[in-house]
Amino acid sequence: MSSEIYPVLIDGQWRAANAVGTFQATNPNNLQPLPAVFPVSSWADCDAALTAAADAAKQLRRMPAAKIVEFLNAFADQVGAAKEALVQTAFAETGLAVSPRLADVELPRTANQLRQAATAAASGDWARPIIDTKAGIRSCFEALGPVCVFGPNNFPFAFNSAAGGDFAAAIAAGNPVIAKANSSHPDTTRLFAELATHALKATELPPATVQLLYRTGHSDGERLVSDPRCGATGYTGSRRAGLALKAAADRAGNPIYLELSSVNPVVITPDALKQRGDAIADEYVTSALMGTGQFCTNPGLVLLIACEESEAFISQIQQRYQDSMPGTLLSPAVANSLANSLQTLQQAGAQLLTASGEKIQDRCAVSNTLLRCSGAQFLSDPETYQTEAFGNASLVVVAEGFAEAAAILAALEGSLTGCLYTATDGSDQETYNTLAFELTPKVGRLLNDKMPTGVAVSAAMNHGGPFPATGHPGFTAVGMPTAISRFAKLTCYDNVRPERLPALLADQNPTGKTWRLIDGQWSQASIDA
Amino acid sequence: MSSEIYPVLIDGQWRAANAVGTFQATNPNNLQPLPAVFPVSSWADCDAALTAAADAAKQLRRMPAAKIVEFLNAFADQVGAAKEALVQTAFAETGLAVSPRLADVELPRTANQLRQAATAAASGDWARPIIDTKAGIRSCFEALGPVCVFGPNNFPFAFNSAAGGDFAAAIAAGNPVIAKANSSHPDTTRLFAELATHALKATELPPATVQLLYRTGHSDGERLVSDPRCGATGYTGSRRAGLALKAAADRAGNPIYLELSSVNPVVITPDALKQRGDAIADEYVTSALMGTGQFCTNPGLVLLIACEESEAFISQIQQRYQDSMPGTLLSPAVANSLANSLQTLQQAGAQLLTASGEKIQDRCAVSNTLLRCSGAQFLSDPETYQTEAFGNASLVVVAEGFAEAAAILAALEGSLTGCLYTATDGSDQETYNTLAFELTPKVGRLLNDKMPTGVAVSAAMNHGGPFPATGHPGFTAVGMPTAISRFAKLTCYDNVRPERLPALLADQNPTGKTWRLIDGQWSQASIDA
Repeated sequence: MSSEIYPVLIDGQWRAANAVGTFQATNPNNLQPLPAVFPVSSWADCDAALTAAADAAKQLRRMPAAKIVEFLNAFADQVGAAKEALVQTAFAETGLAVSPRLADVELPRTANQLRQAATAAASGDWARPIIDTKAGIRSCFEALGPVCVFGPNNFPFAFNSAAGGDFAAAIAAGNPVIAKANSSHPDTTRLFAELATHALKATELPPATVQLLYRTGHSDGERLVSDPRCGATGYTGSRRAGLALKAAADRAGNPIYLELSSVNPVVITPDALKQRGDAIADEYVTSALMGTGQFCTNPGLVLLIACEESEAFISQIQQRYQDSMPGTLLSPAVANSLANSLQTLQQAGAQLLTASGEKIQDRCAVSNTLLRCSGAQFLSDPETYQTEAFGNASLVVVAEGFAEAAAILAALEGSLTGCLYTATDGSDQETYNTLAFELTPKVGRLLNDKMPTGVAVSAAMNHGGPFPATGHPGFTAVGMPTAISRFAKLTCYDNVRPERLPALLADQNPTGKTWRLIDGQWSQASIDA
Repeated sequence: MSSEIYPVLIDGQWRAANAVGTFQATNPNNLQPLPAVFPVSSWADCDAALTAAADAAKQLRRMPAAKIVEFLNAFADQVGAAKEALVQTAFAETGLAVSPRLADVELPRTANQLRQAATAAASGDWARPIIDTKAGIRSCFEALGPVCVFGPNNFPFAFNSAAGGDFAAAIAAGNPVIAKANSSHPDTTRLFAELATHALKATELPPATVQLLYRTGHSDGERLVSDPRCGATGYTGSRRAGLALKAAADRAGNPIYLELSSVNPVVITPDALKQRGDAIADEYVTSALMGTGQFCTNPGLVLLIACEESEAFISQIQQRYQDSMPGTLLSPAVANSLANSLQTLQQAGAQLLTASGEKIQDRCAVSNTLLRCSGAQFLSDPETYQTEAFGNASLVVVAEGFAEAAAILAALEGSLTGCLYTATDGSDQETYNTLAFELTPKVGRLLNDKMPTGVAVSAAMNHGGPFPATGHPGFTAVGMPTAISRFAKLTCYDNVRPERLPALLADQNPTGKTWRLIDGQWSQASIDA
């Protein structure tokens, strides 16, 4: 292989990949390939990374949580200090705005997530220690082994496989990470991995705690997530690739957490529109076109009730869509996928309300697109009408009355979010009750009078939802400490001698403030000898 | 269909099954078919049950937790009152001892589990409410829809699909249950379902909260667990049938919790044997032959280090195995499966230390069987040597030294439990460290100086473990409230108006004592207005 190809990071060494090919990212603002050349790894690289990770996992189990905490904080410092290079590289690779976005929103958030993970690891609360002193039984969550992280294209920092939410959660639980870069921003991911190696050295963690592969063939990816040395996988990305990985991991009995596709329905009642239609149109367009619509929680489906106010609302947002300059999409693949989805929706019968819905030639972009269908159309083929059009496009569904609207919600697949806008005076509370009753089981997060974009990094957040939004409705990808428990195994210690217990289960509270369930009471106290 | 065939329970009615066949259970003590004839349901029955369950799930969501609590307690009362009929029927179907077992251990435990589930449902702690007052975000676990429960053969009461642990946990979360009876004890399951209908009527819960099918074809079972109306599935049983259901549910993105096979390794060091070999032999034989070895946590693999003490131990347990009358197995299928597993192990090279390992003719039984192999043999084919021999049989593996023992532990699949016996004076602590380090990641419950049979019903219990012991290492089937969270969905309420929040997330603590994480602090307090 040529020396111009970037090496992969295995067991602390940047070494030439055992490659079966190469690839380059594309600058979405001019469609030119970026100069850096990255390898497509063969199974030999995956195998070497798994072996090193399995060994690192063993070493990490012998280390106190404080070492993990030190690393996460040191890494957060590194990320903050390397801001300029990260932002510049990510901008070239993704076309996302430098400000307000990469430099002032996403980068600080990423460093903040690493620090929150450090805080969670230090407190130990995530492990939910439970102690039954009478039965002599104690249990808590523990690290479960190497975690493979496949990051998405749309958050080059906050969900980066080598620095983002899944990464931070997996490390906080005490697991090493094998990061698989997203092919649309390999150089950004490389920078994070570089910073991680510095932080690992400074804090004396096993070098293989963070490893990086840029890309593998599909079958090697499936082999990776189903390998006995792999403890679990976190994946955010396309539904097709995700389902292939899920099938492989499921067959092997390896946990896999997926974030796939989500149309994020927004329901707006006539009373809400009557009261504040202009304001809601503002909110909606801002949310729907923000980041060129490339948020996991982008509102892709607007459900209205047939009435004058709904027609006025549609006209308003249609005008705004046409008047707004279409943003740049993340990659040619995203533009192609969006154009294809819009074709699919139109072929099903959806009516185009804006421009052609076709690609713009000189950069990765598609005109801002609004489609419309009736409730009856939607109900005649709910699967096709729920095709995710990832990007700056939405489908407006106009139902004939509340019963049809409820039927449409009942026909929805799982989504990350669902929003309900109703009258602020509570005059249509009955309608709310009917619609919320159908919507709530379909979503991970229910919102009132608020758009779904913007995922607060809070302990109470759920960035999850029923399939196919994610692979399991009981887990969240955002929010410490809950997000950590995805990458953990429950272990019970039965009659285990006191000196052999993990620190979190010892009589003495190891931090003096870890919350533990002791004989049925949550407590921060130690157990009296 | 003949009127002699028992009806199924769908939507509160005992109605003739839409059957594709019939079956009868066998009395394992005399190999005679029992008189009651049960239907094998077609898809039409499954479909009707799913429709009724989906409707019941909606009704349950509108009911306060107190109604669920009433039902669980009323059902526990009914179970206690019907003791005689239950014990007699289960004895005829399973051959398990009336005392000490069915009447005085398992039945009280079953009623107790229902009451513990009621207590957990009443407290709301299982839902782990998290409130972020500043961000206006609140989340908790909620019911996720109809739960299909496939109960195992070995606990006709405590894990019964219509009364046992999975049932109680699913109901406590607010879900209706579709029980699929185990074919070895359909009449026992019918009795439980009868009692449940009385309790449902008395407490005015939806009739379809508990439904019963006796058996389905394999493909209908797979369709049932993957149906969009099915919220989740709990399965305990054979590995082959469980993996087929898992594949179907996984493809559909429906959660499924499985308890499959587990060899439950027991490691005994030379120092432990030197010190108290006789006592350990006692403990081991009692545990291994209890219930004719038909516990999920039965110690099926004993790992010893080659030495005089180990040889003496083997002689002792060999003698005990030969001197003990073989117990009756649960069914002809169990006897056949055990005989087949013993064949497989012998064909791999394991040496028979006791009698023939063949079936006894006039009842469901196989002679108490002990097999032996070397560590080298085991390591040459770990998969085959881990064949679960469910019943009164164990494999003794004699390793040449601690390094080989550690390698054997590293080669193990996941188990529910793992035991380590070492010297009580701590003289072989180093050995413990080495072996526990390899064993802990492989098991859900690590024991010291204690046999694995006997699963305390405690909040700190983990009856779970890495695949194939279960389908996910982060969940337990025993222990309230943790077991409940398997059958729940995480839902976040973002900016949702106060009057629309679930009771558990309201400012006022709904019970006055529910533990909630409020702005980072666990608390039983209400939030000041």
